[in-house]
Amino acid sequence: MDKVKIGIIGAGRIGKLHAENLRFNTRVEIKSISDLYAQAVAEWASGIGIGRVTDDYGDILRDPEIDAVFICSSTNTHVPIILEAAKSGKHIFCEKPISFDIAQTKQALEVVKAAGVKFQTGFNRRFDPNFKRVREIVQAGKIGDPHVVKITSRDPDPPSREYIKVSGGMFIDMTIHDFDMARYLTGTDVEEVYVTGAVLVDPVFAECGDVDTAVITLKFANGAIGVIDNSRQAMYGYDQRVEVFGSKGCVTVQNEFPNSAEVSTKEGVYRDNPKHFFLERYREAYIEETNAFVDCLLHDKETPVDGNDGLQAELIAHAAKKSLAEGRPVKLAEIELEV
Amino acid sequence: MDKVKIGIIGAGRIGKLHAENLRFNTRVEIKSISDLYAQAVAEWASGIGIGRVTDDYGDILRDPEIDAVFICSSTNTHVPIILEAAKSGKHIFCEKPISFDIAQTKQALEVVKAAGVKFQTGFNRRFDPNFKRVREIVQAGKIGDPHVVKITSRDPDPPSREYIKVSGGMFIDMTIHDFDMARYLTGTDVEEVYVTGAVLVDPVFAECGDVDTAVITLKFANGAIGVIDNSRQAMYGYDQRVEVFGSKGCVTVQNEFPNSAEVSTKEGVYRDNPKHFFLERYREAYIEETNAFVDCLLHDKETPVDGNDGLQAELIAHAAKKSLAEGRPVKLAEIELEV
Amino acid sequence: MDKVKIGIIGAGRIGKLHAENLRFNTRVEIKSISDLYAQAVAEWASGIGIGRVTDDYGDILRDPEIDAVFICSSTNTHVPIILEAAKSGKHIFCEKPISFDIAQTKQALEVVKAAGVKFQTGFNRRFDPNFKRVREIVQAGKIGDPHVVKITSRDPDPPSREYIKVSGGMFIDMTIHDFDMARYLTGTDVEEVYVTGAVLVDPVFAECGDVDTAVITLKFANGAIGVIDNSRQAMYGYDQRVEVFGSKGCVTVQNEFPNSAEVSTKEGVYRDNPKHFFLERYREAYIEETNAFVDCLLHDKETPVDGNDGLQAELIAHAAKKSLAEGRPVKLAEIELEV
Amino acid sequence: MDKVKIGIIGAGRIGKLHAENLRFNTRVEIKSISDLYAQAVAEWASGIGIGRVTDDYGDILRDPEIDAVFICSSTNTHVPIILEAAKSGKHIFCEKPISFDIAQTKQALEVVKAAGVKFQTGFNRRFDPNFKRVREIVQAGKIGDPHVVKITSRDPDPPSREYIKVSGGMFIDMTIHDFDMARYLTGTDVEEVYVTGAVLVDPVFAECGDVDTAVITLKFANGAIGVIDNSRQAMYGYDQRVEVFGSKGCVTVQNEFPNSAEVSTKEGVYRDNPKHFFLERYREAYIEETNAFVDCLLHDKETPVDGNDGLQAELIAHAAKKSLAEGRPVKLAEIELEV
Repeated sequence: MDKVKIGIIGAGRIGKLHAENLRFNTRVEIKSISDLYAQAVAEWASGIGIGRVTDDYGDILRDPEIDAVFICSSTNTHVPIILEAAKSGKHIFCEKPISFDIAQTKQALEVVKAAGVKFQTGFNRRFDPNFKRVREIVQAGKIGDPHVVKITSRDPDPPSREYIKVSGGMFIDMTIHDFDMARYLTGTDVEEVYVTGAVLVDPVFAECGDVDTAVITLKFANGAIGVIDNSRQAMYGYDQRVEVFGSKGCVTVQNEFPNSAEVSTKEGVYRDNPKHFFLERYREAYIEETNAFVDCLLHDKETPVDGNDGLQAELIAHAAKKSLAEGRPVKLAEIELEV
Repeated sequence: MDKVKIGIIGAGRIGKLHAENLRFNTRVEIKSISDLYAQAVAEWASGIGIGRVTDDYGDILRDPEIDAVFICSSTNTHVPIILEAAKSGKHIFCEKPISFDIAQTKQALEVVKAAGVKFQTGFNRRFDPNFKRVREIVQAGKIGDPHVVKITSRDPDPPSREYIKVSGGMFIDMTIHDFDMARYLTGTDVEEVYVTGAVLVDPVFAECGDVDTAVITLKFANGAIGVIDNSRQAMYGYDQRVEVFGSKGCVTVQNEFPNSAEVSTKEGVYRDNPKHFFLERYREAYIEETNAFVDCLLHDKETPVDGNDGLQAELIAHAAKKSLAEGRPVKLAEIELEV
Repeated sequence: MDKVKIGIIGAGRIGKLHAENLRFNTRVEIKSISDLYAQAVAEWASGIGIGRVTDDYGDILRDPEIDAVFICSSTNTHVPIILEAAKSGKHIFCEKPISFDIAQTKQALEVVKAAGVKFQTGFNRRFDPNFKRVREIVQAGKIGDPHVVKITSRDPDPPSREYIKVSGGMFIDMTIHDFDMARYLTGTDVEEVYVTGAVLVDPVFAECGDVDTAVITLKFANGAIGVIDNSRQAMYGYDQRVEVFGSKGCVTVQNEFPNSAEVSTKEGVYRDNPKHFFLERYREAYIEETNAFVDCLLHDKETPVDGNDGLQAELIAHAAKKSLAEGRPVKLAEIELEV
Repeated sequence: MDKVKIGIIGAGRIGKLHAENLRFNTRVEIKSISDLYAQAVAEWASGIGIGRVTDDYGDILRDPEIDAVFICSSTNTHVPIILEAAKSGKHIFCEKPISFDIAQTKQALEVVKAAGVKFQTGFNRRFDPNFKRVREIVQAGKIGDPHVVKITSRDPDPPSREYIKVSGGMFIDMTIHDFDMARYLTGTDVEEVYVTGAVLVDPVFAECGDVDTAVITLKFANGAIGVIDNSRQAMYGYDQRVEVFGSKGCVTVQNEFPNSAEVSTKEGVYRDNPKHFFLERYREAYIEETNAFVDCLLHDKETPVDGNDGLQAELIAHAAKKSLAEGRPVKLAEIELEV
């Protein structure tokens, strides 16, 4: 195989983003895209050279030429599509979270395994050059054994009430990226979670049974401690910083800025805000993420973010939800037992 | 009164530090200093112009010319000395913590109140120009209502086994400064504490029933959340950073460095480590702290860090200890009830 | 016209770079590319979908479908190609410098003007988001009237002896970008130049009658002063910083880095070097530069970097060369008179 | 000698500053201070414990107990006082510049040498921890052989018209510190100077035959190049940065700030301006400068900034003045020949 033929399921914001990145990949052909509102995306799709638009993702799964699918539809459809795609022998790139339900996620991953197809979870931040460099530094032993991992993750604007309602809650919708980042940076699994949450940004979160602000403590299998702080609204833009502190030192990364211009006047020193949101901040990471997936298909390698990575992050998210509800630390083992 | 006459009780590291700062204050005369090992400090004391050295702090309390005392002796002696000093009508500057025991601290503060003498707790970090600026910015409303307060506080080197044993534990010995900082920066009281602690630096901490690494979550009365991360050993020096995130923005301060020289070579970009420890980092803050106390005496003002500030930090420390022991969040009200 | 048909003349490093950027521009079709070694580039060209490869650029100029040419051949061929291209009615994007000879450059620009075709000089740095932001800030009056402009421009590695010999000298080869930047940031023309140069990197520069290190002072028409410092070898990578100081303040930009990871250990604080060279640093700028050119063709607008911009930078470079040779400040008017 | 007895000549701003620093030096006794307006400074002097105030500096020179004098009077009085002080066997700390006249400076230094007294020129910036670190790094060979030295030096506010008139011009009044810094950082002498100057801040400078803005290029004996940019008015405060670029790398230092608080809001990222002026920025350097002088007296060492350092900076200043007047590079040798 020297060119991968891809079908994209779901042409919402993220499906379109992947399509627009993949079309510049000379090792990829996007054969088809499916969307419930096929007509609404037809012009866009033909404009970027996608051969076929359908409202039935089955068309994609039945196409024997297609090697792999990108599942970019709404979360509640992920598992059924994964099951069908695996049975059709398609390799799978699936957006996060795999599902809202641990049992379903596990079932899907078992089917994937049995089918022998490749599976990558859409944790794009692992491909950010800053976070990659942190992981390299940690893995090279430059800061010794990790003791404390700190992740700041704040969105510039809260989502709409409609989105909040179906989001599964902040932990599974937003923090799930940070849970994965915690595992990625330390190379260890999380065992226990404790959450302090609050509604400080907008009462709509309380109405939806959710929070908008949280500090989450993690205990790792190797004894290290993690802490994530989240907010649904940072007025200055997307705030995405990490720090790993260890026995020999510390590594930090800062936000990315659109430029480094610094203006000094009578009023003080000023610079522009960080890149506004994930599309700007993780533009390259999204490209690298799909490049890496395509690489795995072409060279028959393991995907860099597998199904278990998706599952682990979901387990932490469920433990976080329970911790918040019950006001106590919750072990991941407890969540697994419940399934 | 245009000059304050001061007696210093305890000529250990911190007593000497205050003495050496106070002697450059033209509004102060250090009349006497007491220490159990008076002879060992006599030469130093006369070298900086202190009139009298005694091994009996009672000599200081009985001196009618002395306006105020600095209590810099070991923590277990603070309360009895406070009681006597208050009864002798001396104003009091007391090092932190006031005591290891909430009931005793309360009793001491009541006697102080009854005696009508001024009392300042030795939270030097409030006088650091960086943290002062953060508080000003928060109080001016520039970042809106505080939502999340983050404090990183790491020592460069762990103390000796002997010190650890009598330290009262990391929370009351070291984190107490951070507990006060959390209240100082937000202007609110803490209501609940949850601790995740570990022994990752040196097993000696476990042997002494202590931890050397911790992440501590705080719930404030006004709904905000705080998080402190501590380590007894940062190989790169004293790590003292804070961040307050609020409804309108965020304010951060970084470590202080001995110089800003940045060297770029084939191997990368390099700069020297932060100021090594508290003597370097808080040199100015220690001076400002005593200046502020002297100001209060000369102009009959409220001290900027009063006895209740000392008490509140101790309450948080005790709640933290209990949270760690019992693996659950602990309310400060619970600690107060126990007394 | 809703799609521009382009021919590229010269498939060296820069010609290939433009081709690879242009092929992702949905408003562009690269119809042909010419190179003296057509065979050597044929595979590359077909790989990125260029229809035709020829060793005769005349083929491109004679193709009536082609709207515009990118002149990326060696400098000594620019003028004859410009003359022919203009006469063929092709719009022209020409790499810097237009020529090594002021009279020839002027002649070429006159022919371009007479032919009524558009002309853009390849000063890619104008499209760097950092420098663009500096110009915006200056033009918005935020730093008041510019008083001093400072440009640091250092290459990571010196070119080969072969290249140095035909480069036209450092000023016309390398500093020409900085001369343009000085005009771009201030919005004013340069009137006088004074150079202090030296051979400190490699004696090969002296052998070629060139320098490798220089500090160049500029006097602007509006009274401001500029200073450029150049080196052919910065061991830590490409050093590209600017500063504009004015009556109300100052604006600076720093280098760009591949990541912001900062590692603190016992040995100090470390980060990776800046982006290594122009391909990394100006990747986006090269894309924006060609986008802007395409925009001008599609919407019949003035090019953002015109022929006079190319000419002015050459005049400064010639004045610099003379200043170095004669050890005195040289006015641009003096150079113009010589032509 | 275990304590140095000092007399201070001139109780203007800088004389008072030295007095207030020296009084905290336990190895120093300030015996007397002289000022033309002795009465006006008497209260201040007694307040800080200076024994005697006189309007005749001869009283100081004739006092056999006095070991050393600080010459802080107006520049035109320096040379006669140096001559007398040297003949009286007093060690001398003299403010910069030694004089406005090269011949006089040379004569004074010869008399000093003949008298065998120690002499230190008041180049306080050499004692700034940032610049000291740069010099250490350069001397340790970390950046290889210096190729280019860059100094940015801008005052926050221009001096008064009265001061400008008697200042000797910007180069001898203000830039003289930068000339010394250039020699200090590189460890080499300057051989040639070229100046581009302008009046952009205030026409009063033109009226006084002076400039307020300049870029000054230096050629060093070892082939390196230096460049200084000056302004009499930076609206954001004192701007004092340096950079040394060499064969192996580059070292830079930034301005010092009163705090590191950084505020991010909807409007962007903001921090306070740098320390406002020399009293804030060089507070420690002034203390270290006098400590170093006292050290030399107590331990019979060479002063760290000798008379030749003062002379060399003056030579460069005179060459700069001539370069500006004649619009050409001027060699220091030319200035020496004129004397």
